[in-house]
Amino acid sequence: MADGGEGTLDVVLASLGSRGAAHEHTVSDAAGQPTVADYGVFDDPDGAIAIIEIARIVGITDSRGTSVPLGARSTRGVGQLLVALMDRGLRRFLVALGGSSTNDGGAGMLGALGVVLLGSGGEPVAPTVAALGQIERADVTALDPRVGQCELTLLSDVDSPLCGPLGATAVFGPQKGVALSEVAVLDAALARFAERVESALHCRAATSRGAGAAGGLGFALQCLGGNFRVGAELVADLVGLDDALQGADWLLTGEGRSDAQTLAGKAPLVAARRARAAGVPATLVSGALDSAALPALARHFDAGCFAILAAPSTEAACIADADALLSDRVEQLARLWAAARS
Amino acid sequence: MADGGEGTLDVVLASLGSRGAAHEHTVSDAAGQPTVADYGVFDDPDGAIAIIEIARIVGITDSRGTSVPLGARSTRGVGQLLVALMDRGLRRFLVALGGSSTNDGGAGMLGALGVVLLGSGGEPVAPTVAALGQIERADVTALDPRVGQCELTLLSDVDSPLCGPLGATAVFGPQKGVALSEVAVLDAALARFAERVESALHCRAATSRGAGAAGGLGFALQCLGGNFRVGAELVADLVGLDDALQGADWLLTGEGRSDAQTLAGKAPLVAARRARAAGVPATLVSGALDSAALPALARHFDAGCFAILAAPSTEAACIADADALLSDRVEQLARLWAAARS
Repeated sequence: MADGGEGTLDVVLASLGSRGAAHEHTVSDAAGQPTVADYGVFDDPDGAIAIIEIARIVGITDSRGTSVPLGARSTRGVGQLLVALMDRGLRRFLVALGGSSTNDGGAGMLGALGVVLLGSGGEPVAPTVAALGQIERADVTALDPRVGQCELTLLSDVDSPLCGPLGATAVFGPQKGVALSEVAVLDAALARFAERVESALHCRAATSRGAGAAGGLGFALQCLGGNFRVGAELVADLVGLDDALQGADWLLTGEGRSDAQTLAGKAPLVAARRARAAGVPATLVSGALDSAALPALARHFDAGCFAILAAPSTEAACIADADALLSDRVEQLARLWAAARS
Repeated sequence: MADGGEGTLDVVLASLGSRGAAHEHTVSDAAGQPTVADYGVFDDPDGAIAIIEIARIVGITDSRGTSVPLGARSTRGVGQLLVALMDRGLRRFLVALGGSSTNDGGAGMLGALGVVLLGSGGEPVAPTVAALGQIERADVTALDPRVGQCELTLLSDVDSPLCGPLGATAVFGPQKGVALSEVAVLDAALARFAERVESALHCRAATSRGAGAAGGLGFALQCLGGNFRVGAELVADLVGLDDALQGADWLLTGEGRSDAQTLAGKAPLVAARRARAAGVPATLVSGALDSAALPALARHFDAGCFAILAAPSTEAACIADADALLSDRVEQLARLWAAARS
């Protein structure tokens, strides 16, 4: 399972087997340096579909991409990849939005697709969040016309709007390096940018569900006609989870840390709901559990909620040892399961 | 379950119900200050049995008792309690040896029962480990004669000899505050003391199983005729574990930390062995698991081995929250068990 964040590409390609294939293309990373981005293409009766994982281009765990300040990071590489794929004739895209290091509202991507941002004197303004506050107008006359032929499906586990207290900057900015004192200024710059883009493209997307995903890339893609989907639901469909649950005895699923956010519809909850619908008991095995959320989590996982830890430890040590801890814990749970049934 | 260490008295009394009763008596703690020690008495067809928990008199967690250096700590209070109980007509004793702060070889207890230690000039030597190196002779002429009428059963989870690299000082001294540089001197003092006591009482106990329990109290009690028993086996008998396992579906057991020592015969292992003999699947739920020992532990616990942790945490935080963590984890395991059987 995956939810539109890091790993979504691998999960989908693995489930598709010979129907899908991995490819690479060199684009700009968040810092503007060349990076080889993986993407996938798979057959579909209505036409081939490309799957792009934003984290592979402007990922929060890419130390080269995050070597420049947030204000200078750009999603230009995402637009470059879309152009290259349209050049190859592709028109259907799944865009997995999680795990980005950027907060540019998708301005970089729009720039790569031909949108030009202009200041009050008609001069071009750089499509980075540091400059967005100076925009007077967005010129969309050079927007790649093939974008209008595209089907853009957005996978996200975030349904935040672009701006405001629940928006991209306020909620996700701090983990990307935004100082609390900068939040208001950046949020206002994104709001100004959004107004100008909406006006030029005759759309409304800033308050849409998921506009705040991937530092506002969700906004820009929705302005281009993208449809927001709950990432975990779409991935569950793509990987055939319901079919796999038919006749299954037991579902084991998990994530890094399970807490109140899990209940908002993250991948494990989506998997548990589908398991319950299929009459299959579900167990949660996560890196960590928030004990305060345990009673609520337990209502969804009728076969128990567990953490992988074996002993008092730091988060870093648990992450470093996660493979072995997960494998140990699942083996022990399976032994209990088998003993209970025998 | 218990294994002869802290908690043994409570476990046994709880299982006996109205057949047993708790009492108290004031004796000296390890530092020589008065302390109220709990003990139990229960009916038995062959005569009432008193159960004494050494940890209630000279416990390692008693900060008042450990406020003096190890060299000055004494098991005198244990002897005082035996005298008081003999005064009440009791002759059968279960002595739970775990959890002591002392390392006096039981010299303090012997002193309270009338044994006098003498130096080379015939002068009395204090029965503390700091002075044992000066002993020339043990005078047992004033040893309370009623001791010879007593049945002394020793419960221990430690089967170390008194001295040497596997002895009381080398193995347990450091956790009681012995500096590594002192180990050899204290070990030699205990060896000298043991020789003199064995010679006076015409016994051999220093190399017996469990002589090193409770800082050598196991030695002194065996010199007085005490019989060493594996604490967990005896407690399992006392609490009627085999009867409880008849017709049971599932055994859950655990301890603070499970590791290679568990395999040497600690309480959870004894419980698991009896469960297997009764055809009942056993699950281990401990405060922490040593992952390196997991494969070996899993061979004994066919229904899985688990730790109570929910998230990365310190040992101190886990101990502080142990009740809630244990209750949460067992509830979740029970949910898995129920789901697997439904």
